[in-house]
Amino acid sequence: MSAGKILVYGGRGALGAACVNHFKAKNFWVGSIDLTENEQADLSIVVPKDGDWVTQETYVVSKVGDALNGEKLDAVICVAGGWAGGNAKKDLAKNSDLMWRQSVWTSSISAAVGARYLRDGGLLALTGANPALKGTPGMIGYGMAKAAVHQLTKSLAGNESGLPKDSVVVAILPITLDTPMNRKWMPEADYTSWTPLSYVADLLMSWTVNEKRPSNGSLIQLVTKNSNTTLKVTE
Amino acid sequence: MSAGKILVYGGRGALGAACVNHFKAKNFWVGSIDLTENEQADLSIVVPKDGDWVTQETYVVSKVGDALNGEKLDAVICVAGGWAGGNAKKDLAKNSDLMWRQSVWTSSISAAVGARYLRDGGLLALTGANPALKGTPGMIGYGMAKAAVHQLTKSLAGNESGLPKDSVVVAILPITLDTPMNRKWMPEADYTSWTPLSYVADLLMSWTVNEKRPSNGSLIQLVTKNSNTTLKVTE
Repeated sequence: MSAGKILVYGGRGALGAACVNHFKAKNFWVGSIDLTENEQADLSIVVPKDGDWVTQETYVVSKVGDALNGEKLDAVICVAGGWAGGNAKKDLAKNSDLMWRQSVWTSSISAAVGARYLRDGGLLALTGANPALKGTPGMIGYGMAKAAVHQLTKSLAGNESGLPKDSVVVAILPITLDTPMNRKWMPEADYTSWTPLSYVADLLMSWTVNEKRPSNGSLIQLVTKNSNTTLKVTE
Repeated sequence: MSAGKILVYGGRGALGAACVNHFKAKNFWVGSIDLTENEQADLSIVVPKDGDWVTQETYVVSKVGDALNGEKLDAVICVAGGWAGGNAKKDLAKNSDLMWRQSVWTSSISAAVGARYLRDGGLLALTGANPALKGTPGMIGYGMAKAAVHQLTKSLAGNESGLPKDSVVVAILPITLDTPMNRKWMPEADYTSWTPLSYVADLLMSWTVNEKRPSNGSLIQLVTKNSNTTLKVTE
């Protein structure tokens, strides 16, 4: 018998794959949702890349429902996302559109899945971004998308948001994650200020099993210094 | 000779049409951008409704450039928008997608136009919403879109956002505007707490001619009580 059931949206990304592995190692049934398959997962939902927002929502909600067959989820964890720079002068729509698909479509579809299939008292975890708490003139599309995820988190924590009774929604706001891609692109950086993926996966695990859960609607900044990560709740 | 040149995105909506008329009455050259023509305007750009975000941006930027023929704009005013309710349980993607198109596509395209055609010291005015400063569980898509517009406003006010030197970007955050549609749908409401369109048009006019301009990046709440409107700068 499994320890519980969770979904990881973005289960093929660096952080997502780390989460899939971490929960699998703790005997959870784990579903992955992404544009490509994660073979480690018990269920892999491959989202139709060219489908529009409604099509992707309908597809994912339906596939999750089929797989659960009446059972419920302990957590829905959305760590899908991406990054693009750019200001108002060039490719604003193009970059904003990409950021919207990668961060907001995935977060809102996770919310729609959570509303239907999370158990009472379940966890919905989304991924925001520290810089988007202020203006981000050099990465305008990215900032808009993450600001939308922050506000979505607060909406979902409100009364009558559609999430099940006693469920908790939080957003993690990483600064820089210690991923292979970030090491590749920023080889000179100080890695001791980057947050390890294993730390994040373990954090999400503890919240899933209701240890040290933040209050509903929290935006939790992950601040790493000298290889030590602390949590800072956004005011 | 005209008093100046401005664009109104959403120039066929209730507030947009009020702005077109107000600026025309003050001898401005006025361009309207909307899904249908505004015959009062000097230029009417009809956006291809079925075009995607990039297509609409490209189309509008190109049409504005053709019309200006090397001249610059004093202001770009985006009052396009719409409203949809709905929580995470039903039609979240559908409603969010609509809100995104109506509020964020229009705001970001206004920013792209501003980056190219606003004069130094020009005004870019966007439209946010008071409720989106917090969670909006009963209108999740609307809240996300308006939160994105708020953050966009702060991004555009930052260094290297792509807007011309000394330009100012602000967002107005109405609570309820006194429009015919709102009167139709809320016939029992207290109209003395609704903000008149003429007040908003006059406010945008004064900022355009550099009277009492708020500081760059401000989110300005419009608070109407007993038919008297005051401005409240969001902290």
